[in-house]
Amino acid sequence: MQSATIPTAWSGVFSVLPTPFDHSGALDLNSLARVIALYLRAGVDGLVVLGVTSEAARLNDAERLQVIESAAAAVEGRVPLVVGASADGVRRAIEYSRAARDAGASAVLVSPPRLARPTADAVVGFYTALAEAVDLPLVVQDYPPVCGFTMEPALLVRVALQVASVAAIKLEDPPTPWKIARIRDLGGPQTPAILGGLGGVYLLEELEAGASGTMTGFAYPEILVRVVQLWNKGQREEAAGWFYRYVPLMRFEFQEGIGIALRKEILRRRGALREATIRPPGLRPDASTLASLERLLGWLREQGGAEWSWD
Amino acid sequence: MQSATIPTAWSGVFSVLPTPFDHSGALDLNSLARVIALYLRAGVDGLVVLGVTSEAARLNDAERLQVIESAAAAVEGRVPLVVGASADGVRRAIEYSRAARDAGASAVLVSPPRLARPTADAVVGFYTALAEAVDLPLVVQDYPPVCGFTMEPALLVRVALQVASVAAIKLEDPPTPWKIARIRDLGGPQTPAILGGLGGVYLLEELEAGASGTMTGFAYPEILVRVVQLWNKGQREEAAGWFYRYVPLMRFEFQEGIGIALRKEILRRRGALREATIRPPGLRPDASTLASLERLLGWLREQGGAEWSWD
Amino acid sequence: MQSATIPTAWSGVFSVLPTPFDHSGALDLNSLARVIALYLRAGVDGLVVLGVTSEAARLNDAERLQVIESAAAAVEGRVPLVVGASADGVRRAIEYSRAARDAGASAVLVSPPRLARPTADAVVGFYTALAEAVDLPLVVQDYPPVCGFTMEPALLVRVALQVASVAAIKLEDPPTPWKIARIRDLGGPQTPAILGGLGGVYLLEELEAGASGTMTGFAYPEILVRVVQLWNKGQREEAAGWFYRYVPLMRFEFQEGIGIALRKEILRRRGALREATIRPPGLRPDASTLASLERLLGWLREQGGAEWSWD
Amino acid sequence: MQSATIPTAWSGVFSVLPTPFDHSGALDLNSLARVIALYLRAGVDGLVVLGVTSEAARLNDAERLQVIESAAAAVEGRVPLVVGASADGVRRAIEYSRAARDAGASAVLVSPPRLARPTADAVVGFYTALAEAVDLPLVVQDYPPVCGFTMEPALLVRVALQVASVAAIKLEDPPTPWKIARIRDLGGPQTPAILGGLGGVYLLEELEAGASGTMTGFAYPEILVRVVQLWNKGQREEAAGWFYRYVPLMRFEFQEGIGIALRKEILRRRGALREATIRPPGLRPDASTLASLERLLGWLREQGGAEWSWD
Repeated sequence: MQSATIPTAWSGVFSVLPTPFDHSGALDLNSLARVIALYLRAGVDGLVVLGVTSEAARLNDAERLQVIESAAAAVEGRVPLVVGASADGVRRAIEYSRAARDAGASAVLVSPPRLARPTADAVVGFYTALAEAVDLPLVVQDYPPVCGFTMEPALLVRVALQVASVAAIKLEDPPTPWKIARIRDLGGPQTPAILGGLGGVYLLEELEAGASGTMTGFAYPEILVRVVQLWNKGQREEAAGWFYRYVPLMRFEFQEGIGIALRKEILRRRGALREATIRPPGLRPDASTLASLERLLGWLREQGGAEWSWD
Repeated sequence: MQSATIPTAWSGVFSVLPTPFDHSGALDLNSLARVIALYLRAGVDGLVVLGVTSEAARLNDAERLQVIESAAAAVEGRVPLVVGASADGVRRAIEYSRAARDAGASAVLVSPPRLARPTADAVVGFYTALAEAVDLPLVVQDYPPVCGFTMEPALLVRVALQVASVAAIKLEDPPTPWKIARIRDLGGPQTPAILGGLGGVYLLEELEAGASGTMTGFAYPEILVRVVQLWNKGQREEAAGWFYRYVPLMRFEFQEGIGIALRKEILRRRGALREATIRPPGLRPDASTLASLERLLGWLREQGGAEWSWD
Repeated sequence: MQSATIPTAWSGVFSVLPTPFDHSGALDLNSLARVIALYLRAGVDGLVVLGVTSEAARLNDAERLQVIESAAAAVEGRVPLVVGASADGVRRAIEYSRAARDAGASAVLVSPPRLARPTADAVVGFYTALAEAVDLPLVVQDYPPVCGFTMEPALLVRVALQVASVAAIKLEDPPTPWKIARIRDLGGPQTPAILGGLGGVYLLEELEAGASGTMTGFAYPEILVRVVQLWNKGQREEAAGWFYRYVPLMRFEFQEGIGIALRKEILRRRGALREATIRPPGLRPDASTLASLERLLGWLREQGGAEWSWD
Repeated sequence: MQSATIPTAWSGVFSVLPTPFDHSGALDLNSLARVIALYLRAGVDGLVVLGVTSEAARLNDAERLQVIESAAAAVEGRVPLVVGASADGVRRAIEYSRAARDAGASAVLVSPPRLARPTADAVVGFYTALAEAVDLPLVVQDYPPVCGFTMEPALLVRVALQVASVAAIKLEDPPTPWKIARIRDLGGPQTPAILGGLGGVYLLEELEAGASGTMTGFAYPEILVRVVQLWNKGQREEAAGWFYRYVPLMRFEFQEGIGIALRKEILRRRGALREATIRPPGLRPDASTLASLERLLGWLREQGGAEWSWD
């Protein structure tokens, strides 16, 4: 196994990968390798498998392992590989995390589990137990639908300060820019790296608020990369110009209830996925939605001129 | 009282108005009149008061009446005035609707109430009772957070077919374009008018799917009006061009948890509201969010050239 | 107006009253007076109007005031009268609380409002603002369905210690006995009075954990009174015996989704309410449920012998 | 493998088994065998593994299989063995169901998966796909927290009539007695078997409404068995007497948030489980809760006289 790359700086674009399936719904690991190749060419700073939008909840334990191993083999240590390990219960989160580490993960992305009665101490206790059991950097996943409650900025800061292996916080609880600013106010110089999410739909505003990058899915990661690189070089107006031009597409792709299917459809058109299949049940793009996608891609091609050379 | 204008066609842009407050949190009816004047100049096809984003749940019964009466006086029958009348329980929804009618409403916008155990028959029964009690067109509000459950397309079609005074369905349950297409598939030629929502963030896709317009808030309704008018004239590429250019702003304004405050802040800057006050508790735009707003408005001004003459 | 009785000790049984309606759904204030008389004869330590199970959300502002004034007139200062004043937003909670005070309330029962993003500081800020605006003791209502989030024991203790006018905490977040013990552990000697809830279904266990009584609805408050009095006199086995014998009825009455209707049906049979009407929509007891009620009441009469003389 | 017993009549008591763990949290299959022996001696009509209260969500795929196989070996075909197979997605529900069948299950208990947008057709489609893929009787699990939406009585009847292998409906959506009566009204002579749930807390009322038994956990299944047997023999008053005497314990055990831990504690005291360990995170019974348990068991022993010979 290629040894994992541990990020020294949690900044830039960490792309959450879809899990490709063939028409029968079985894992399509060749397509996974192609998506990874596409994303690496796009210049992403890290890759994430088994996130929420990877349909991780619809994989069995054996498939999860196959995905991590295939991804690790395809990445070859060129960028960090983060593995989603949120689970129902402390024990399974530890199991998932250890399996991820053994299969080549650079870090794990973990939400607190559902709690019978959520308390701040229980959340801190969870991450402490996880950190003791797993020798990997932890990314705290702040996504209320997974754990069933909201972690307020003060709690996220407390987790980051008390649990040494917490390397970054990935936000998914809107309004993310506002929350980033609150975390930074409270955390001061000790604030951990904060990564945005939400399909990149608020990327520019997250950067404005102090995010060091984003960890999210979007079928054109090169756009996210360009925005973040320009921003970090201080070329903020140019970053904004790129962002505003392409955010209509991020918004379209990130539609609640149908976003994963749309992302896969775009990646199929880009030649990375053989099939756009999602595991049922789920909404599939209808004729009207596909017509909207065509219209939007057509407009972007016109806008982008020579720059839209990716496809 | 100016007699109410009943819409003959439920199409175009129905703008949901914010409820303006002064710095102490009291109603500011002068600002309401100014917002209405701004929106009428923008060419909207109808106006809505006491919607969810009007902070209606934070008004007492007397204030609700003041808002309707002030709005009716300012509108002077030039466009239909729709009044939100969703309530906890059949009786209050009827009371609100009758009060709205007496104060000059053209129609009421009503969600089902929370149901101990939701059934399709209970929803149909609710709208039937409301229709029998109130002599006004009904707009069905499809917004799960208000009623606590999801109305599937087949149920919305059934309500529209069985309750004669249902004039339109206003969607707020994403993905709205997909849902519009399903309602039209099921309703066939008898499908009622369908209006989109969600801050206009999916307006173009809603039109593509068959919406006849939108009923939503957005601080620049002239943009929504232009998009819908171009679309309806068949100038779809031009409609799309306008939409894609301005949807970054719709997306920004519609941020969950802070959207109403942002909309008020923009309307304050446009000179319509004296204060951007929302009734607490609520998030207020912080320095970073305001900087993002400045950046975005600046970019739009540059893009828009002479066309951005509204402010 | 009879001057309000301010409780010196928040202990014993505070009965949440139903709001009686006639067959048309209008307020039936005569029945309200009869229920109050019944409950006072039962020996309750306080009465509560406009609670969640009082169908308060289905009353308009004028009806709310009528209920408080009628109750105050019927109570005649013999026991404290607590008034529910939870609302959407700080301003309405203050308005409701002030109106309650002016109409004769001894205290108000208030949940935090829904918060765009709940934080401990926002909750403390809410109660601080309420305390500054309203010169009445506050009872903190801990009922997640009203505010949309869970208040952990540490937060409840913090509210009670920081806001001087907080007189008691009323729990409705199961498991209530466990939560009571945690609050007492954290609060130590400064723990405020804690009252149980949940229809009395865990009354004995709440007392065991350190509750000073209960604030809840149940159509036979004399049973709750007897249990609490025996417990407080140290006759714990006798308290337990009474509780275990009657808790089958509390459990039956407190059924989710139909509990208010059942409570009203029992109070109708006891002669206190003229009608068992609830404001629609809502489930009504069907033949099978009424047969179950008959069976249970019959069994209790047999068990109770001469003691079951209340009806 | 002992061949599975397919129930000819879905009536009586189907006990949902806890999953025993040792102090380290590992599976304790010896304890599982002891619990099964205890329950078989109690006269249950069937056993269920991997239900919600079996902490199934905290087991990995290999552990799930171990539990089924151990249970099948211990049951030896004496009663039907039902296996919980609810999952996120159609494919995993099918995988779980097939694995259950291969390991000796008599039937599977399955909730619909979470749906991006729930519709009646999607639910029927799910059960149809499951029935086509798995050659076992299906028990429909009606438990909104698992699937995220409510199935109305008409939908449950439709599923049962359209999907031939649906053998029974297990209800967990209160008020269960009311819902049972509605399903029977709608289903008429074709109504499938309906089993109650909710820890037995409404068992008598569920029988009154037409349930043919219950499928639930409770640490004294002999009580449930006696109640159902007496009821079915027409000795309804005696059934009621037993039920009312023991329902205080069912209510206590079934406390939200702590019920599984209490059930395990009781089974530990009964000698069936070596440890009462639950997999974290979760509330554990505190001193006050254990004192309440002691008090209640003491009272029941006194009440029960010679009949309370089970321990």
